[in-house]
Amino acid sequence: MAKLDISPIKFESDRLLLLDQTRLPGEEVFIEIETQEDIYDAIKKLKVRGAPAIGVAAALGLWKSVDWTINDRKKLALDFHEKADYIASSRPTAVNLEWAINRMCRVFDDTAFGVGNDKLRDVLRTEAVSIMEEDIKASKKMGEYGLSLLKEGMGILTHCNAGTIATTKYGTCLAPVHLAKEKGMKIKVFADETRPLLQGARLTAWELDKAGIDVTLICDNMAATVMSQGKIDAVVVGCDRMAANGDGANKIGTMGVAILAKEYGIPFYMFVPTSTIDLNTKTGADIPIEERDGEEIYKMWYAKDMAPKGIKTFNPAFDVTPAKYITAVVTERGIAYPPYEESLKKLVEQE
Amino acid sequence: MAKLDISPIKFESDRLLLLDQTRLPGEEVFIEIETQEDIYDAIKKLKVRGAPAIGVAAALGLWKSVDWTINDRKKLALDFHEKADYIASSRPTAVNLEWAINRMCRVFDDTAFGVGNDKLRDVLRTEAVSIMEEDIKASKKMGEYGLSLLKEGMGILTHCNAGTIATTKYGTCLAPVHLAKEKGMKIKVFADETRPLLQGARLTAWELDKAGIDVTLICDNMAATVMSQGKIDAVVVGCDRMAANGDGANKIGTMGVAILAKEYGIPFYMFVPTSTIDLNTKTGADIPIEERDGEEIYKMWYAKDMAPKGIKTFNPAFDVTPAKYITAVVTERGIAYPPYEESLKKLVEQE
Repeated sequence: MAKLDISPIKFESDRLLLLDQTRLPGEEVFIEIETQEDIYDAIKKLKVRGAPAIGVAAALGLWKSVDWTINDRKKLALDFHEKADYIASSRPTAVNLEWAINRMCRVFDDTAFGVGNDKLRDVLRTEAVSIMEEDIKASKKMGEYGLSLLKEGMGILTHCNAGTIATTKYGTCLAPVHLAKEKGMKIKVFADETRPLLQGARLTAWELDKAGIDVTLICDNMAATVMSQGKIDAVVVGCDRMAANGDGANKIGTMGVAILAKEYGIPFYMFVPTSTIDLNTKTGADIPIEERDGEEIYKMWYAKDMAPKGIKTFNPAFDVTPAKYITAVVTERGIAYPPYEESLKKLVEQE
Repeated sequence: MAKLDISPIKFESDRLLLLDQTRLPGEEVFIEIETQEDIYDAIKKLKVRGAPAIGVAAALGLWKSVDWTINDRKKLALDFHEKADYIASSRPTAVNLEWAINRMCRVFDDTAFGVGNDKLRDVLRTEAVSIMEEDIKASKKMGEYGLSLLKEGMGILTHCNAGTIATTKYGTCLAPVHLAKEKGMKIKVFADETRPLLQGARLTAWELDKAGIDVTLICDNMAATVMSQGKIDAVVVGCDRMAANGDGANKIGTMGVAILAKEYGIPFYMFVPTSTIDLNTKTGADIPIEERDGEEIYKMWYAKDMAPKGIKTFNPAFDVTPAKYITAVVTERGIAYPPYEESLKKLVEQE
């Protein structure tokens, strides 16, 4: 596989294929999505993950799953909206899922009663593909803006995976790292393993290693150590939903890293496509946080149970980093600085 | 097994048995120590772990491994000191190992040329047993001092395992939690799983669950979340070596927790028997930090590899929490507060 040609979403001849990220790094397997259950399951079980990639996959998956042979328009609309609601319910935190599904619904509703079935199907197909293509463009732009914040020889810490495989291509917070590599700049990346689902170990280490980028895997609790040793010049992370005030939900553990970065005077950059900024969500307190099964902590991945049977657990999948810890927000339309209420609004409404 | 009767070190009829903590929580198995290789291996591979327990096990293990039948005193001294050096080299960070071995060596050297073989063996046996008994007393005292800092209904966060099984009995930072339980006080403990070796999940959760204490297992990167939600009133941790200025080496991840605690205004208590305070080590910068095999991060425990083959890793086993983040140091002789240069010296030299 050529470098950086690791898009997790393939849409070719109307077939939708997703890289099953639960099987990385050991196996590189694509699964085909045809039904609403297929796409719901793929999102729910994190076969496709990363806010932007979830949005794109959901839009294409919705389009695939609708029964376009239904002649009765009311029935077709019902089929479309029921499936849209079902797919949108697969995960609660990432706003892109809701955003992409809503966008498909709006186009459906605006078009549905004016055209024939084939045309309607085409219009929705075009909309889903647009969402995908805009994601690629946005990622590349974010990479360029992000790169303006980095310098030769820097050490970068990242948490979870907001890389190529969390988007359609390039990634959000890893896009500048990939672009730096293309330009021959040396950047050294430290990847938090990101418990409990190990996206850092399984995905970020895999992706960067594949791209020939210098990557060192650490446990989450080693971030303070590498920072204290002067190895880290910047922290880059993605975002699953950013509220209007700049509070950003991202993979559990992000807030801790942000607090450590502040303590060590290291800039903390959150990479947020404007589709991930939700002006309707006022602050982080309004972002729903998904809680997942405790077995992910003591059972999943392991050869045997790593805690006593029946142990109580707390397993939030995300945390919300308060805006005060975020040095800058990198979007595809530019870089926003505090106060975020103004700067984010400006960027989102600028289109 | 009765509550709190979970000493990891049994010394009965001159037989030394250690609870193999690498097999918890699944199996409760004791291994017998007879040779220098047995005790070296047990310490190196963390079958016995926790600074106080390592010191006790090393002293008893040294006594067991020496060939007391050697008649020539120079040869016996050589045997003793070679084995002492070998056992002392099994792990570098915890000062108790060196401290206990040195204490045995001093007694050996002071006694060796004045008495017969049987008497010499007895004197060393008594010294090793004293180290063990002092550890039990110290842990209980630390528990009482620690308990004075806690209140009914508090939520406590702990990292790694500085519990009963990290000492001969009672534990250091978990001693007050066990005492609280005995007094009927309700304390809720959040246990960091403590990557990569999962001492929190495998040992702390096991120990507290066994003792009927309310314990919730979280991943290390969730500490900031539970703190931000107001669930944590105090952090309690152990220590492997404390420098004269109060910088404290402990399990990797401790420093990060301390910084988070400071950010949320939560007191951070380090439990440090005076045998763990090393006045000869000026600051944390002088404490050697053990680096362990990267396979602990991506291979150990797992059913299959969790990172790409050949991935670069950084796996320090400890970090050093600067004194400025430590609210108080709890010892068996009382509680020390900043400035630690003075308060620690006073406690150590008070005997």
